[in-house]
Amino acid sequence: MKYIESVNNSKVKQWKKLLTKKERDKSGTFLVEGFHLVEEAIKQGEQISEIIVSEKVGLPPRWDLGSTPVTTITEEISDSLSDTEAPQGIYAVCRQANPEAGNAKSLLLIDAVQDPGNLGTMIRTADAAGIDAVIVGRGSVDIYNSKVLRSAQGSHFHLPIIRGDLHEWMDKLQEKDIPVYGTALEGASAYTDISGGDSFALIVGNEGNGVGKDYLANTTANLYIPIYGKSESLNVAVATGILLYYLKK
Amino acid sequence: MKYIESVNNSKVKQWKKLLTKKERDKSGTFLVEGFHLVEEAIKQGEQISEIIVSEKVGLPPRWDLGSTPVTTITEEISDSLSDTEAPQGIYAVCRQANPEAGNAKSLLLIDAVQDPGNLGTMIRTADAAGIDAVIVGRGSVDIYNSKVLRSAQGSHFHLPIIRGDLHEWMDKLQEKDIPVYGTALEGASAYTDISGGDSFALIVGNEGNGVGKDYLANTTANLYIPIYGKSESLNVAVATGILLYYLKK
Repeated sequence: MKYIESVNNSKVKQWKKLLTKKERDKSGTFLVEGFHLVEEAIKQGEQISEIIVSEKVGLPPRWDLGSTPVTTITEEISDSLSDTEAPQGIYAVCRQANPEAGNAKSLLLIDAVQDPGNLGTMIRTADAAGIDAVIVGRGSVDIYNSKVLRSAQGSHFHLPIIRGDLHEWMDKLQEKDIPVYGTALEGASAYTDISGGDSFALIVGNEGNGVGKDYLANTTANLYIPIYGKSESLNVAVATGILLYYLKK
Repeated sequence: MKYIESVNNSKVKQWKKLLTKKERDKSGTFLVEGFHLVEEAIKQGEQISEIIVSEKVGLPPRWDLGSTPVTTITEEISDSLSDTEAPQGIYAVCRQANPEAGNAKSLLLIDAVQDPGNLGTMIRTADAAGIDAVIVGRGSVDIYNSKVLRSAQGSHFHLPIIRGDLHEWMDKLQEKDIPVYGTALEGASAYTDISGGDSFALIVGNEGNGVGKDYLANTTANLYIPIYGKSESLNVAVATGILLYYLKK
């Protein structure tokens, strides 16, 4: 087991850079933090490339590390790798997946969702609902942002999360007769008018502006969730949950 | 219109104290921040007691302020009242409501939800779903916490949000033959086995531990949301949305 105690060590510098999207994409890796996410990375097994642990922290004996290298670091270095208030002192470097989702029949398409907590919660919700793949379009926060990873609680290791062009995906899905449902406040049908099933794609969009009009013009149908009270709208992750669980039923 | 430029002004000190629960409860007031929340406070009209605005910010002409006093402050004071990264420079002091909900037929009961974003989103979701009242039990984050207010997006001004004893509420509701549904992972029925309707109470609980066992033992029935994929659970606000929209249908 390696031990690093200098904050100037080149590996430490490289890990810290993974807090930026630029370096994540350049290296094709990302950093997960905390016991739950590291355990999910270990369980999945294919993407994890190394474990980093503070000397103040113990590895749970139940973890089957296989041949994954482990490096021990000082608490000071550990704290410098975290953007949380109470770092758990454990990290894993993982490879970005390059998943195929050509056979996916149920998909969540995400247009320009900017809050990392929302995006992560939507990925977690899609996972729970048994959706086959999540496609994240341009204008959304990075899928490997640390807060997205935390909010998704490990779902990045459970289903394909793909950065893609939503227009291309919509075309491809509709060619296969998979209905594509947009979400909109105007010119839309109540979601309960649609019967759902095993095969569908749902597009949800930006917190302030909703789904882009150019997408809505090319859907099979657009749906809205009725507002029975006085709030103007629902949180996008909550709306996603209501729609996915309704459509999957 | 009053103008205050000293950060040591006694009113400024009092407003700042409203960032703490202790002072909010002592004074029976709370502070909302940002154009949307201040506008919701103005529209509701009954709880607003004063508006505070940075000298760098203009009041939208559409706002009907009535006799609500307005105080202008420096940008420096304005920034000191905010706990957001990009303060909008507009605030309102509002009185805490002391609502009755004796006739409420559809209720959301919240047990020990600690994340302010979750609690606010749940209040917003209850509002959207047309729920009559939200009862917040012990162990939850303060309903007037600034992040709860922001996430609820004005729903505090739309429906009764009551701090209460959940056991007492459960007893009272069941005496009136209003079914009380808990949410649980074990010993529960799939939510789709229940038919819902206009009259019900739903109890949702803590992010890590769920609803307290002493509550679950006294419900009409306990429900779970099936997990079809590999995530362990749903976010509590998302689960609340799925259940409320299902039960209200």
